[in-house]
Amino acid sequence: MSVRGYTMNKDDYTKRLRRIEGQVRGIERMIDEDTYCIDVLTQVSAATKALQAVAVGLLDEHVRHCVKNAVADGDPETLETMVTEATRAIERLVRT
Amino acid sequence: MSVRGYTMNKDDYTKRLRRIEGQVRGIERMIDEDTYCIDVLTQVSAATKALQAVAVGLLDEHVRHCVKNAVADGDPETLETMVTEATRAIERLVRT
Amino acid sequence: MSVRGYTMNKDDYTKRLRRIEGQVRGIERMIDEDTYCIDVLTQVSAATKALQAVAVGLLDEHVRHCVKNAVADGDPETLETMVTEATRAIERLVRT
Amino acid sequence: MSVRGYTMNKDDYTKRLRRIEGQVRGIERMIDEDTYCIDVLTQVSAATKALQAVAVGLLDEHVRHCVKNAVADGDPETLETMVTEATRAIERLVRT
Repeated sequence: MSVRGYTMNKDDYTKRLRRIEGQVRGIERMIDEDTYCIDVLTQVSAATKALQAVAVGLLDEHVRHCVKNAVADGDPETLETMVTEATRAIERLVRT
Repeated sequence: MSVRGYTMNKDDYTKRLRRIEGQVRGIERMIDEDTYCIDVLTQVSAATKALQAVAVGLLDEHVRHCVKNAVADGDPETLETMVTEATRAIERLVRT
Repeated sequence: MSVRGYTMNKDDYTKRLRRIEGQVRGIERMIDEDTYCIDVLTQVSAATKALQAVAVGLLDEHVRHCVKNAVADGDPETLETMVTEATRAIERLVRT
Repeated sequence: MSVRGYTMNKDDYTKRLRRIEGQVRGIERMIDEDTYCIDVLTQVSAATKALQAVAVGLLDEHVRHCVKNAVADGDPETLETMVTEATRAIERLVRT
């Protein structure tokens, strides 16, 4: 069992991140072309939302990985660390 | 194994929630006494932060419960449902 | 012109905050009755969302108040302070 | 007076957005190289935070622009629209 859990969706993550990269470049262009603040903000919110969807996906995979590890009778200390890491990541995510 | 996972911290949750209740009543009083918006907003942010800490605590316990269930060789379908519920809850939390 | 700007909706704020107070008490009860984590989390998310709606309302009023103050030829330094306070409040809000 | 308010900081916005673009490309690379979920999440949180700082900056400028417009005796209807747009943008931002 590998350490990361999102192997199956690698392409999906890549596609989403490329789209976000394009959105960020679009925001740069908008600012360069003196677009109205509010329209720029709409794009910034869209990119932020897209990044948060990536984060939720990664957390989902991490929790599934903790569970698989537990079913496979993994080392309790490693499991404990992984769950604590999940909580810290959720905390950071909720604060951003 | 009980369905909820935060039995050990019940008192802690109760204490935190009573404090939040007090904060909300404080905000009501501030508005009643025509307190400056920005000072009211500071209190609203503090109460929101305190509620989110409760949410992170509940998620932590839920994930630990998923893991315990997995170690105890729980029903795979139940486990699957619990992990999906965790992800949906994280999603709602990130969006609020 | 008074310092706060939400006089007209005082009752509305009070009603919303009383409802939030009730939601928080409901969460206390749910924890006391050992309700399933995920259901408690749904309630915590609802209360958080309601608090954030109050915050957005207060920010709206504050910005309107800045504008009224500007139209009324208010002291530039006070205006500057008020706008900076709005930004700081938005920052805190986005981080919670 | 131009429609956008952040002319003075155009370079600053561009620099921040280029850095965010780099962060997003870094996340793509991390996923490609099978980096541990939690480390990827740390980077996603950092990029999200950086985007939100851009959003707060744009909102600050927009509110300052509303106030300048008000001081300059701008059209009340335009002002009203601009303030409402600020509130809607704050709402979207708080929800992401």
